Amino acid sequence: MIRVTIWNEYRHEKEMPEVAAIYPEGIHNELKKALSKENDDFVIRAVAMDDPECGLPQSVLEDTDVLIWWGHAHHGDVPDALAEKIADRVRKGMGFIALHSSHLSKPFLKLMGTSGRLNWRDADRERLWTVAPGHPIAKGVPAYIEIPAEEMYGEPFGIPEPNRLVFIGWFAGGEVFRSGCCFLREAGRIFYFQPGHETNPTYKIPEIIKIIGNAVRWAYNPSADYSTDCTDCGHPAPLEKK
Amino acid sequence: MIRVTIWNEYRHEKEMPEVAAIYPEGIHNELKKALSKENDDFVIRAVAMDDPECGLPQSVLEDTDVLIWWGHAHHGDVPDALAEKIADRVRKGMGFIALHSSHLSKPFLKLMGTSGRLNWRDADRERLWTVAPGHPIAKGVPAYIEIPAEEMYGEPFGIPEPNRLVFIGWFAGGEVFRSGCCFLREAGRIFYFQPGHETNPTYKIPEIIKIIGNAVRWAYNPSADYSTDCTDCGHPAPLEKK
Amino acid sequence: MIRVTIWNEYRHEKEMPEVAAIYPEGIHNELKKALSKENDDFVIRAVAMDDPECGLPQSVLEDTDVLIWWGHAHHGDVPDALAEKIADRVRKGMGFIALHSSHLSKPFLKLMGTSGRLNWRDADRERLWTVAPGHPIAKGVPAYIEIPAEEMYGEPFGIPEPNRLVFIGWFAGGEVFRSGCCFLREAGRIFYFQPGHETNPTYKIPEIIKIIGNAVRWAYNPSADYSTDCTDCGHPAPLEKK
Amino acid sequence: MIRVTIWNEYRHEKEMPEVAAIYPEGIHNELKKALSKENDDFVIRAVAMDDPECGLPQSVLEDTDVLIWWGHAHHGDVPDALAEKIADRVRKGMGFIALHSSHLSKPFLKLMGTSGRLNWRDADRERLWTVAPGHPIAKGVPAYIEIPAEEMYGEPFGIPEPNRLVFIGWFAGGEVFRSGCCFLREAGRIFYFQPGHETNPTYKIPEIIKIIGNAVRWAYNPSADYSTDCTDCGHPAPLEKK
Repeated sequence: MIRVTIWNEYRHEKEMPEVAAIYPEGIHNELKKALSKENDDFVIRAVAMDDPECGLPQSVLEDTDVLIWWGHAHHGDVPDALAEKIADRVRKGMGFIALHSSHLSKPFLKLMGTSGRLNWRDADRERLWTVAPGHPIAKGVPAYIEIPAEEMYGEPFGIPEPNRLVFIGWFAGGEVFRSGCCFLREAGRIFYFQPGHETNPTYKIPEIIKIIGNAVRWAYNPSADYSTDCTDCGHPAPLEKK
Repeated sequence: MIRVTIWNEYRHEKEMPEVAAIYPEGIHNELKKALSKENDDFVIRAVAMDDPECGLPQSVLEDTDVLIWWGHAHHGDVPDALAEKIADRVRKGMGFIALHSSHLSKPFLKLMGTSGRLNWRDADRERLWTVAPGHPIAKGVPAYIEIPAEEMYGEPFGIPEPNRLVFIGWFAGGEVFRSGCCFLREAGRIFYFQPGHETNPTYKIPEIIKIIGNAVRWAYNPSADYSTDCTDCGHPAPLEKK
Repeated sequence: MIRVTIWNEYRHEKEMPEVAAIYPEGIHNELKKALSKENDDFVIRAVAMDDPECGLPQSVLEDTDVLIWWGHAHHGDVPDALAEKIADRVRKGMGFIALHSSHLSKPFLKLMGTSGRLNWRDADRERLWTVAPGHPIAKGVPAYIEIPAEEMYGEPFGIPEPNRLVFIGWFAGGEVFRSGCCFLREAGRIFYFQPGHETNPTYKIPEIIKIIGNAVRWAYNPSADYSTDCTDCGHPAPLEKK
Repeated sequence: MIRVTIWNEYRHEKEMPEVAAIYPEGIHNELKKALSKENDDFVIRAVAMDDPECGLPQSVLEDTDVLIWWGHAHHGDVPDALAEKIADRVRKGMGFIALHSSHLSKPFLKLMGTSGRLNWRDADRERLWTVAPGHPIAKGVPAYIEIPAEEMYGEPFGIPEPNRLVFIGWFAGGEVFRSGCCFLREAGRIFYFQPGHETNPTYKIPEIIKIIGNAVRWAYNPSADYSTDCTDCGHPAPLEKK
């Protein structure tokens, strides 16, 4: 059983009819439904930025093994203290999956240490290539996936060298992007995944859902120990001289 | 010509006689003198936390190719905005060398994305082993260096996997530590180096100075382009569809 | 169910009474017994160099998910063709665990691309430190393990930078060693683990067995696809121009 | 002064008129001329497979800081012993640049430990994207380079995760490729660079020559120590117990 929390900014869906038309209940609930169908052992909770305590009260965070994050235009409204609490929990072992425009979300940037910047333009045809075929996140995923229209994200992408690069995106207009990247931060595993612009029905593509489900399994760390206090560097040394 | 700025907290030296006895003019000036002697092509500036603008006004930062940092008990007194400015400049290509207790300094943690935590206890005999003999930072450095007394820093060390691990410390009391670690963050190169507690005369050991000088050369990036704006993710795409 | 094959040179045990006294049935059978006791879901086979076809006929190799290797003085007696077949299978997803002196075994060197060289001397007291506490291979493993006597292996160790460094060894005589290292090679996962000299009863220490068992689980890749032909680079491109 | 040796299979040029039309004196001499023009401090030697001792007698190898390699249809004609000698020298610090179809050359595969396999088809329009703008190999290189026609190389590419990925290729027909990859092997630095099929005049594009020149500088290791004997693992330990 893996406890998954899907966090969504959930404002585009309420403000833009063309987004509501695709995801009437919000991206978080769409993902919850789709992931539930394929993964019996996930216990999934969907929360939104405008829920109390930004959707992530302590009790929810502590009940989460893997946190999926979709943010875009309102990264600044996530309190710094919450972002730091999330990052801390990731370092202790919680998985974190940053979707699409979450490349500039506070928790992701805190964990990366880089700018997260990239190039972008309007939607284009994308082909998502599997670069690491034997990787758990690519399990059951074909050599490439066609996405009829997806916002173009292009290199250079301001990330540290991924621990493992699993997918590279090709765009018909002439760009490439490191679209699926694994990172490790102490006991935590982080996956960035590019597809998923709010005006494209990308999360309705079965292979995309398969990848996100695989990423949840990969990011889940049953050895996580959330009791250690990462902010205290002054542990007494465990050894005596002999 | 490499423009080096050495930043020091410079409070222990003024408050603790046993530190002043070792470094009467401060660790920053000690390092400046020692590095200058061995490196004709370094232009070195030594600054301190209690200098105006925390020692790093915009003009100084912009005149720096490689920033060496020694902080300890007062990390919190570095303004967040300054720490972010430093991290940004590193991402654009400025080298950054974090010495000893700077593992918990704001700029270092911002660049790592991890907790920086470690174990520690009082001084012990250390042997610093060269793990990557052909690496530029190990140039001219013997198989190991004896440090008669150095504060013990022990694993686990809360860092991302180093891009390259150059030195491992062995302590007589029974601990080990990843003492010399290279990290890359976009155009920037970062080196963490463990030796250098304020009550031990470690920066008077010639091989330690050689390593820090080598690290400056390694971290210096002549391809750095500080004009790009890392905080703006909305670059127009450079391509037209063809 | 994970199909594990333990390969052992199995000559010291027959030639040296002091080794036979510790491992009368050979290191491979000792490991088989110890791993079986703790891991119900492992199906373990123990084979030796002097078995027919060097212990690894095609049928056995094809029936193996994770191969554990212990070799020492007779690396040269493993046929090149077998070593290449093993390396190929690892690239397609078979796990490989190289124990102790297998740092110079043919399959390990073929997979690393480096010299494997290291420094060594006679047995000393070792403390094995957990550097990556949240890593699956460190699951349930304490901060450090005391090994009363183990052959000293010291840096520099001729390996590529590990994908993840999990353990560092400390030796009372003054050396350090990267004792537990993870590597990835296409779909394959490789773990090198230093303890286990034939004249020391190291494989009787429960924590050492726990680590090897954890390493088997980590190295097991259920996404492995052994049907692809890695020696053929001329796959027809899967795409048509559109 | 950097001593560069360019090794070329040099058979296509003699057997295929369409190749001879592009590179009448061979790819090695073309590269020599182009690199010399831009790099005053390179001392360049161009050799071919059918020269005595496969173009690389001991004296030439020992006089080489960086070896550039172009092989294609006749990898098997390079003696194993020579390939191993080259790989050994790389581990001790010689730079190695594998061009285009050298992804299956013996020295490259020995250093990687992987299959080197990839997908391919006939020439297509390629755009080579700079993924790591601040990297020394990208110095002075624009955001992307247009190559009017280049043999398509596509993912998955059977390499270990690069230490640093500098370029990704985009092909008009729909594929992507990790076209510029850095690897480290002990004291040696290796760069794989995809463009350069024999029937396309790619080595006449100034930016391609700039990249290869940059790669030579990056791969050059002035700390290399070729006197150490990598095949001997039995170094006496440098320490006494204290």
